[in-house]
Amino acid sequence: MSGSGKLPELASDAVLKQSIPVPEDFVEVKGIDYGKDNAYNMRAKDLINSMSTMGFQASNLSQACDIIDKMRTWRGKHKSELEEHQLTGEFDDQGFQKTTIFMGYTSNLISSGLRDTLRYLVQHKMVSAIVATAGGIEEDLIKVLAPTYMGEFSLPGKGLRDQGMNRIGNLLVPNDNYCKFEEWIVPILDTCLEEQEAAMKELGPEGLNADSAAVWTPSKLIDRLGKEINDESSVLYWAHKNKIPVFCPALTDGSIGDMLFFHTFKASPQQLRLDIVADIRKINSMSMAASQAGMIILGGGLIKHHICNACLMRNGADYAVYINTGQEFDGSDAGARPDEAVSWGKIKADAKSVKVYADVSLVFPLIVAATFAAEKPN
Amino acid sequence: MSGSGKLPELASDAVLKQSIPVPEDFVEVKGIDYGKDNAYNMRAKDLINSMSTMGFQASNLSQACDIIDKMRTWRGKHKSELEEHQLTGEFDDQGFQKTTIFMGYTSNLISSGLRDTLRYLVQHKMVSAIVATAGGIEEDLIKVLAPTYMGEFSLPGKGLRDQGMNRIGNLLVPNDNYCKFEEWIVPILDTCLEEQEAAMKELGPEGLNADSAAVWTPSKLIDRLGKEINDESSVLYWAHKNKIPVFCPALTDGSIGDMLFFHTFKASPQQLRLDIVADIRKINSMSMAASQAGMIILGGGLIKHHICNACLMRNGADYAVYINTGQEFDGSDAGARPDEAVSWGKIKADAKSVKVYADVSLVFPLIVAATFAAEKPN
Amino acid sequence: MSGSGKLPELASDAVLKQSIPVPEDFVEVKGIDYGKDNAYNMRAKDLINSMSTMGFQASNLSQACDIIDKMRTWRGKHKSELEEHQLTGEFDDQGFQKTTIFMGYTSNLISSGLRDTLRYLVQHKMVSAIVATAGGIEEDLIKVLAPTYMGEFSLPGKGLRDQGMNRIGNLLVPNDNYCKFEEWIVPILDTCLEEQEAAMKELGPEGLNADSAAVWTPSKLIDRLGKEINDESSVLYWAHKNKIPVFCPALTDGSIGDMLFFHTFKASPQQLRLDIVADIRKINSMSMAASQAGMIILGGGLIKHHICNACLMRNGADYAVYINTGQEFDGSDAGARPDEAVSWGKIKADAKSVKVYADVSLVFPLIVAATFAAEKPN
Amino acid sequence: MSGSGKLPELASDAVLKQSIPVPEDFVEVKGIDYGKDNAYNMRAKDLINSMSTMGFQASNLSQACDIIDKMRTWRGKHKSELEEHQLTGEFDDQGFQKTTIFMGYTSNLISSGLRDTLRYLVQHKMVSAIVATAGGIEEDLIKVLAPTYMGEFSLPGKGLRDQGMNRIGNLLVPNDNYCKFEEWIVPILDTCLEEQEAAMKELGPEGLNADSAAVWTPSKLIDRLGKEINDESSVLYWAHKNKIPVFCPALTDGSIGDMLFFHTFKASPQQLRLDIVADIRKINSMSMAASQAGMIILGGGLIKHHICNACLMRNGADYAVYINTGQEFDGSDAGARPDEAVSWGKIKADAKSVKVYADVSLVFPLIVAATFAAEKPN
Repeated sequence: MSGSGKLPELASDAVLKQSIPVPEDFVEVKGIDYGKDNAYNMRAKDLINSMSTMGFQASNLSQACDIIDKMRTWRGKHKSELEEHQLTGEFDDQGFQKTTIFMGYTSNLISSGLRDTLRYLVQHKMVSAIVATAGGIEEDLIKVLAPTYMGEFSLPGKGLRDQGMNRIGNLLVPNDNYCKFEEWIVPILDTCLEEQEAAMKELGPEGLNADSAAVWTPSKLIDRLGKEINDESSVLYWAHKNKIPVFCPALTDGSIGDMLFFHTFKASPQQLRLDIVADIRKINSMSMAASQAGMIILGGGLIKHHICNACLMRNGADYAVYINTGQEFDGSDAGARPDEAVSWGKIKADAKSVKVYADVSLVFPLIVAATFAAEKPN
Repeated sequence: MSGSGKLPELASDAVLKQSIPVPEDFVEVKGIDYGKDNAYNMRAKDLINSMSTMGFQASNLSQACDIIDKMRTWRGKHKSELEEHQLTGEFDDQGFQKTTIFMGYTSNLISSGLRDTLRYLVQHKMVSAIVATAGGIEEDLIKVLAPTYMGEFSLPGKGLRDQGMNRIGNLLVPNDNYCKFEEWIVPILDTCLEEQEAAMKELGPEGLNADSAAVWTPSKLIDRLGKEINDESSVLYWAHKNKIPVFCPALTDGSIGDMLFFHTFKASPQQLRLDIVADIRKINSMSMAASQAGMIILGGGLIKHHICNACLMRNGADYAVYINTGQEFDGSDAGARPDEAVSWGKIKADAKSVKVYADVSLVFPLIVAATFAAEKPN
Repeated sequence: MSGSGKLPELASDAVLKQSIPVPEDFVEVKGIDYGKDNAYNMRAKDLINSMSTMGFQASNLSQACDIIDKMRTWRGKHKSELEEHQLTGEFDDQGFQKTTIFMGYTSNLISSGLRDTLRYLVQHKMVSAIVATAGGIEEDLIKVLAPTYMGEFSLPGKGLRDQGMNRIGNLLVPNDNYCKFEEWIVPILDTCLEEQEAAMKELGPEGLNADSAAVWTPSKLIDRLGKEINDESSVLYWAHKNKIPVFCPALTDGSIGDMLFFHTFKASPQQLRLDIVADIRKINSMSMAASQAGMIILGGGLIKHHICNACLMRNGADYAVYINTGQEFDGSDAGARPDEAVSWGKIKADAKSVKVYADVSLVFPLIVAATFAAEKPN
Repeated sequence: MSGSGKLPELASDAVLKQSIPVPEDFVEVKGIDYGKDNAYNMRAKDLINSMSTMGFQASNLSQACDIIDKMRTWRGKHKSELEEHQLTGEFDDQGFQKTTIFMGYTSNLISSGLRDTLRYLVQHKMVSAIVATAGGIEEDLIKVLAPTYMGEFSLPGKGLRDQGMNRIGNLLVPNDNYCKFEEWIVPILDTCLEEQEAAMKELGPEGLNADSAAVWTPSKLIDRLGKEINDESSVLYWAHKNKIPVFCPALTDGSIGDMLFFHTFKASPQQLRLDIVADIRKINSMSMAASQAGMIILGGGLIKHHICNACLMRNGADYAVYINTGQEFDGSDAGARPDEAVSWGKIKADAKSVKVYADVSLVFPLIVAATFAAEKPN
């Protein structure tokens, strides 16, 4: 330790190791050029462009916008160039093939103000199919009946329960909203059951055959609910109107499930049924029919896996954007990177994919502003 | 900035602010006493006891064990003290009321070596009901047919897909396993469809009534699969044997869904159906019937929400242990603390509850070793 | 379980519990109104405004901008109204008191494209003091000498080391950059040592007294480096020019430390010294002198704690914005919420504070665009 | 969608893709064998062994124990086989080379009950050097003066500040503890200053030369504090006694910094100085001298980077165990995987390394029980 004058070679060789010449295709890290006039109160697209070379999640966010733009603007052949059996999937107004976009979101996003952004996408037919959790269905309907309010993450649960205020993160939903929902949905469930029973009477033993009118599925019930809510603020209203199927295999896992549960007592011995086999056939068929398939997955869990699994049926999606806060270290599907889905054939090896590690509410408004909503639709 | 000799009061008042006398019930932070003989190669219970006053997640882990011990050892009245309509829920061998324990887990845990621990709990009737995702069902069955292997988080997806190796975190499942699963399950699905069709023929228009033999549900199919797999290494085998219902509302969201999808083509125009309404009635009824209800929730997403929602039917669980890596900041149900569930009436305000922030694989073996498996069962 | 017709009261009472009337001050959750013309390719301020009622981190982000706007625009008394001893802290060009803003950032942010945004704030004197880690100092200087490049999180380390490419997340820094840095800094360190020795010769035994010219501190060395780099792209250049102190108590923890280490051999038996006591006095004094104090903390660890600790000297900051990905469950200071700092007196109980749970690169460009850079500076 | 009888090849080829034969060296995932007698109230080593094939973080934890066992039991050549200049680094009692183990920890771990475990390692000379943050120094000393208490993460900050109770996660430290600390440390700082001044008087202009008695460094001050505290419960006491250096480059960043700040007023115009250059030389020299180097890094931030950076001086550590909750997606050093350090030459490409993603309090007691404390030391 005494102060010798000799620089230790072991250390200097390690610290001052020379690097190879920088390859020509290397891209320099750089940020916003504040010398430019558009660097102030920036517009979404300018901001996203600047973020592409910032690194970390800024770059991933920029890449997500790039992938979304690619998936939404891709056009394939014209209908006139295709044979009969190739006329599947999505086409634009001019008759060119376009990407079938599967968008998934968790319940909380509908509870949040993102619902308006999600509705915008559905209203303007910018996505082809939706996968949501039960809350993602019912909260859209309930919001037509009564509002959700701002709260705080730290509000103690006991006091809230005493007041009948349900907390979702930093949001509050008065329990009365669910009472209103019950009043609204029970007559609809009655009608659904009547239709089921009428079809059963007509079809008898063939009542469960393919395409039977006696069989309700989650997507069919959701479409009905979207029709009945009949309100332009609703995602499901527009999904119904624009014939965008909404899948929710575990539709009973929430308030709708509570209502269906109650309804079994009211309807006894009859019982409304919800079959999930027809829906898996429906979503898988959409995947197979698609000319190209894109995934926009907002959150984790069921909605993520369900879209990925559907895309396995076509040997992988062509585009994939994941946005969530899950981490891979616990081996959860929620936290898995897109590359894990590549190993399963759920995303193509040469697909464009990215994961943005973020609360969706933080980035999706910006993403949409820079892509789907870069310009006002006609 | 020049060196004045006067200590600034603003700073010293803030830094040296006096505190109130320490309340008598305050518990000192302390750790392992390495002076003791049991501090070496420690046993699970000793370690957990020491962790109770360590703070951070060590304390939460210790508290989780405490809550689990309370929920599993709670005993209420004897059957002989109860009226007919009170004879619901779980009873021990001596006829005393015990806690109805709902255990939920995500698919990846069955893929991991935790499956043996989960099976142990089911084999010895230590839990009352299970909620799992689709992968949590099928991977248990597939593991009887062929093993899962150790891999690495960083293995590139493209190479794995080329080899037919599916990655789950740092695990690998050869795709042949799914081929074997298809061979195994198709005849079973054939039989299920035959039974459905026979019952439909017999019941006709009443085929969908309550308790109809024509109606398959996820839990009913899972019970059948558990019976058919007939292997003591399987969780579902023991669930079948011990009449522990296994709920999985989105049973189509995985390989079983792929097989059901394929089966719709084979069976056409007939179609096997899976109704989810009967299952929500079944799990909610269990919750209402329970003398006391406990939740052990391993992971997030559907399985977490589903158990919580069922416990709302009884105005809240009495015990709740969450173990997952989700965070509340994104407003997800996965990341919500137990206190959020209190606001909804899903956990009682005076219930004992804790969340351990951890990958389940890291802590659940230790938890079980210190609680359910503290002693060898008879 | 058989289909009884009686709706269970236990469940319906729990599910349909009535809530109190919604308080008048409750704020409805709502998102972007796509009916408006400014909802397309949105500007930063419009986006941030819309996010205020979206919930989750969107609301927190909006609140962060609100707090930043409050801290940067606050004005107190005019110099003419103050007594001599009150003429401390920051004043605007008109002579009114303004907030002393402490900004902290971790090394990686300087490596990323955020450096340009951080420099913008320093260049235009929008912050009063900086706390950074060693990498946050040296990478700013090194970037003047040679660029950093875009890479990928998944690039294997061995291959990179063979090529002399150092990875920082998804960025790459050629090791040659550090060789260039060594060439640049050694003569400067020589000069610093000469100055130290000259002052020691002059002062003798008083060489370590307060305000001694013989004593180098991290902030004094950083100021010198900022002067010597003499490049407008550099944060430190502008910090020097604008007399904004840059604190870095652990300045030896990085490449500068390597160089100082090497320098001890070259200089032996003389040795350049860096005293950290003078710097703690300097930052604490700034905190005490401030009329109001604001914290903008980008990342966790040392830089977060150091600013908070300095603000304890004034019995708490008046404004606090944290942006990082740390979580509180492990008891780390990095993950602690602002409310933990309130318990310590580091943030005032009535201060405006918020934590945004996000990678800084994802949100800080947007935050700055909506606040500090909402308009082009004169 | 109508029920065609033809199974779609696109889907079945993708789903039923064949995999390559399973390589012979593949290891099967399996868990605890509850048929064995040691599967009950398990011992640490048995548990860790079972976890090795469980996957996810269970496997990483097991691997961490394996690496720690390798680093602590490695033995090289005997002193008698070595030349004079090779007689550096650590040797065991028999004279064989052993691994120089650098252990780093964040402040909160000393606040928690882990302190007893960390002290155990130092008491029995199981580590060679420590790197800590300022809180990791002072909290060890303060705990000798007065206890820390259990609290809750959700206790509101305002009420706590009113009571003078400082919160650290779910722990509470009465502010009186810091008052006691001030009383204890001021006389020591007085003495240190006296020694500095005496040496300055003696050495004059050479006062800052290498190895000068006039120069205090963080590690030298910490050693003195460890000596003065003179209590067997203290980590620093044992570090002093066992000549294990404790590095803390930013020693001013905490309560000690507050006291040093106050002391500058008391001592004016004299001023105690703390030089960080000598310490970087000291830790780097230890790294270069080591026969083999191991890292045990508990937490992130400074302490992680500082040890890694020191190991660069020897072209990489031979063993590395990281335990923290940081994630790589934000490009932070805290969240970087060991493989990022490989790219920098801080960990050797062929080193054994692992990161366990966990709150340290959750796993380190178990790790130590299965490794360092598998048997009672003599």
